[in-house]
Amino acid sequence: MEKENLEFTHFNEAGRSRMVDVTEKHTTERVAIAKGSIAMKKETLQKIIDGQMKKGDVLGVAQIAGIMGVKHTADLIPMCHNIFISGSDIAFEIDQDRSKILIEATVKNTGQTGVEMEALMAVSIAALTIYDMCKAVDREMTIEKIYLAKKSGGKSGVFVNPKESQK
Amino acid sequence: MEKENLEFTHFNEAGRSRMVDVTEKHTTERVAIAKGSIAMKKETLQKIIDGQMKKGDVLGVAQIAGIMGVKHTADLIPMCHNIFISGSDIAFEIDQDRSKILIEATVKNTGQTGVEMEALMAVSIAALTIYDMCKAVDREMTIEKIYLAKKSGGKSGVFVNPKESQK
Amino acid sequence: MEKENLEFTHFNEAGRSRMVDVTEKHTTERVAIAKGSIAMKKETLQKIIDGQMKKGDVLGVAQIAGIMGVKHTADLIPMCHNIFISGSDIAFEIDQDRSKILIEATVKNTGQTGVEMEALMAVSIAALTIYDMCKAVDREMTIEKIYLAKKSGGKSGVFVNPKESQK
Amino acid sequence: MEKENLEFTHFNEAGRSRMVDVTEKHTTERVAIAKGSIAMKKETLQKIIDGQMKKGDVLGVAQIAGIMGVKHTADLIPMCHNIFISGSDIAFEIDQDRSKILIEATVKNTGQTGVEMEALMAVSIAALTIYDMCKAVDREMTIEKIYLAKKSGGKSGVFVNPKESQK
Amino acid sequence: MEKENLEFTHFNEAGRSRMVDVTEKHTTERVAIAKGSIAMKKETLQKIIDGQMKKGDVLGVAQIAGIMGVKHTADLIPMCHNIFISGSDIAFEIDQDRSKILIEATVKNTGQTGVEMEALMAVSIAALTIYDMCKAVDREMTIEKIYLAKKSGGKSGVFVNPKESQK
Amino acid sequence: MEKENLEFTHFNEAGRSRMVDVTEKHTTERVAIAKGSIAMKKETLQKIIDGQMKKGDVLGVAQIAGIMGVKHTADLIPMCHNIFISGSDIAFEIDQDRSKILIEATVKNTGQTGVEMEALMAVSIAALTIYDMCKAVDREMTIEKIYLAKKSGGKSGVFVNPKESQK
Repeated sequence: MEKENLEFTHFNEAGRSRMVDVTEKHTTERVAIAKGSIAMKKETLQKIIDGQMKKGDVLGVAQIAGIMGVKHTADLIPMCHNIFISGSDIAFEIDQDRSKILIEATVKNTGQTGVEMEALMAVSIAALTIYDMCKAVDREMTIEKIYLAKKSGGKSGVFVNPKESQK
Repeated sequence: MEKENLEFTHFNEAGRSRMVDVTEKHTTERVAIAKGSIAMKKETLQKIIDGQMKKGDVLGVAQIAGIMGVKHTADLIPMCHNIFISGSDIAFEIDQDRSKILIEATVKNTGQTGVEMEALMAVSIAALTIYDMCKAVDREMTIEKIYLAKKSGGKSGVFVNPKESQK
Repeated sequence: MEKENLEFTHFNEAGRSRMVDVTEKHTTERVAIAKGSIAMKKETLQKIIDGQMKKGDVLGVAQIAGIMGVKHTADLIPMCHNIFISGSDIAFEIDQDRSKILIEATVKNTGQTGVEMEALMAVSIAALTIYDMCKAVDREMTIEKIYLAKKSGGKSGVFVNPKESQK
Repeated sequence: MEKENLEFTHFNEAGRSRMVDVTEKHTTERVAIAKGSIAMKKETLQKIIDGQMKKGDVLGVAQIAGIMGVKHTADLIPMCHNIFISGSDIAFEIDQDRSKILIEATVKNTGQTGVEMEALMAVSIAALTIYDMCKAVDREMTIEKIYLAKKSGGKSGVFVNPKESQK
Repeated sequence: MEKENLEFTHFNEAGRSRMVDVTEKHTTERVAIAKGSIAMKKETLQKIIDGQMKKGDVLGVAQIAGIMGVKHTADLIPMCHNIFISGSDIAFEIDQDRSKILIEATVKNTGQTGVEMEALMAVSIAALTIYDMCKAVDREMTIEKIYLAKKSGGKSGVFVNPKESQK
Repeated sequence: MEKENLEFTHFNEAGRSRMVDVTEKHTTERVAIAKGSIAMKKETLQKIIDGQMKKGDVLGVAQIAGIMGVKHTADLIPMCHNIFISGSDIAFEIDQDRSKILIEATVKNTGQTGVEMEALMAVSIAALTIYDMCKAVDREMTIEKIYLAKKSGGKSGVFVNPKESQK
């Protein structure tokens, strides 16, 4: 079993990709939290902060895009199961010192497979949307370090990324 | 004009997001190249290399997902124009020293808006697919530094990311 | 609790939109009925009636569009949960006196959230399709009074729109 | 010619629906403006106004949904051509006296078919999103009078809905 | 050139799939016609014929599904270009002797790539929809011989399938 | 009951199509297997075999397309329920004597409706993708005999297509 865990489950005996059979898996409540960030010029970040206060909330658009992206995960990731999402939220944190926006997405479901990919998708699409909204003023923005921070539910139980405990 | 360039063009006078009007823009051939990478444990990378040789080509799946993702860009990025893509390709490079896979996507179109977002989407979805295909053996993979490397075509002409010349 | 009911549940503490967490909600059978109408010139309505008898059933196309629209609700309404629909039907009634077509959509599911938005979507897409099919002969058609007529299932129980009892 | 104009062009000789052949049509710049409104309780409208000022901008979400909906028009309206949209914007006006939100969508393209359906879709999806965001506090909201206000471009030239000049 | 024609153009130098670059191709009017059929029990075919006359037009649903399917071709066929379709129609012919329904789809575009896949998709989705609508009475239906009958436009000019001239 | 089984359940009393109400159906594990094939010139088949060994795995692309197609079934087949898929795989067999590739798709779910359409969709999309990948060298390929081979689960129990036992 342990050994099987170390194989790529997404390939069949012919070496071709398949959607893993989860028929026998238990239905449990699952939560996944993914994180990432986007770095930009200080002037760009200042414009985002200013817009938030007044007109043109870049992060509001990114928030909606990220949550809608969650619902498209199985359309985009070939072997991903299409699942019912029971909740989804995104939090942004502005780090002016490092001129970055930190993105944290939380996705929940009750099902036979987890929502890791959905949480990673939410962060990715939110970051890409920030890029799109600001690219007229800064083409050098960089999306950085997208990773699974934590997950719970399912046979493998709770996972906390070592990156998280280092903080 | 220069000043206008420094505004967020994606917001209207009410401070709400809009799809920028490109009716008056010239139709030109446009190319965008985006780059990114995904870091993983050495054992995970070795499995990917092994699968490529024999059975289970993770990067083949990621390639297809990335190219299909290009066609979904306007579905996912709220203010992005839906455009005809005239060509799309992805190249992977394995960096065993740093235990990473480097991803480079090239997208072309002939139109009134460019394909920067499409190229960035291709890299993002390819990276997420690598994550999905390998997550059963390594949950700690990190998607790193996704950025626009180069673009050409359109009024603003050629852009080369300073990151590129530093190499 | 009552008080909380009066808040917009679709916003998080940062004032940004989220997909409401329904993890703790009970799974129940739910039904929603939405209604609406589209008004048009008498000649347009007569053409629709004639086509129905012979060739070119406008309402048949609208019916299919409305039912397929139900399945796209979560793609279009940003904070809407993606759910399994267990049944969907649409009924049209021709009101020649007022030169209108009345549309009534019924949608069912068994889940943690209801299908109000799906029923309203069915009516909207059916009405828009009637417009599209007939716009070559009548551009002045008006989609009128789309509302939730009734819903049942879930914690809040049965809702009947006061508009319904006025009839 | 006039006579042909009075037929439903969306049906073939067998009386079945088809996507009209526009191969021979001229490529012109086209604009369509659609309007509609959503009526609600005074308290609901007040909450929307309050959220706009502080936290939870319902109309910001509706704006994004409407613009994204434009890009899905051909997915939802069966015989609608899939087209490149060159610009899209939505304006909301709050009418406190009549307790309504007025919605006006403008869509542009350069092509062989117009964007009437896209503008009507933008208004419909924006209105449905307002319903979705506020339904926890007001289930009796009614979407009212969605119509094509104006269009220009294409063989048939400028159309102004008589409703507009009555104002 | 001739030799290049014999290679699979959809693979890059690394042996991975790509979307072929058509940037340099000429924009021409293109037409593709695909054919196929679905065989069924005589009683099933009779029910379809009866429904057509009275209630429940199976082929009307299949027609709409096929035409909508045309617009989804690039979503489903990984390396297919997303293109603007300028016209699409389907014709059904009932062959009672052989207990079959013959399906013929015609798709048109003006662009740099053709619509062969779109026409084949229309036939496939129409056939699958007939199966879906009738499967409650006949699970043994068989979709048969889907092929490209004819195409015109583009560098390779007119192609007529030898199957067509054999008739 | 038997009699009702012989009706087209997908039509309502007005003779228009509806999504069948499955609210009262039992949730069971369901499996469907569909088969089909694509015939081609001997040289085309040889190229596919060669690519598999070295560069350019046509069947790898078709496999991914087929599995992703499963998840789009309800988007394409109008009256099909949108369901959670618990597993999906495709097997190809090369028949050099008859110059064909045989395709077999297996789809599983646990729900109130079965996955027959999803399995047939997987075979259809896989076959269409093979056509797309090889059409530059062979436009005369023919997709042949797509049918439901077997299904289990649900009220009607196990179905084995007589075609299967003839073998």
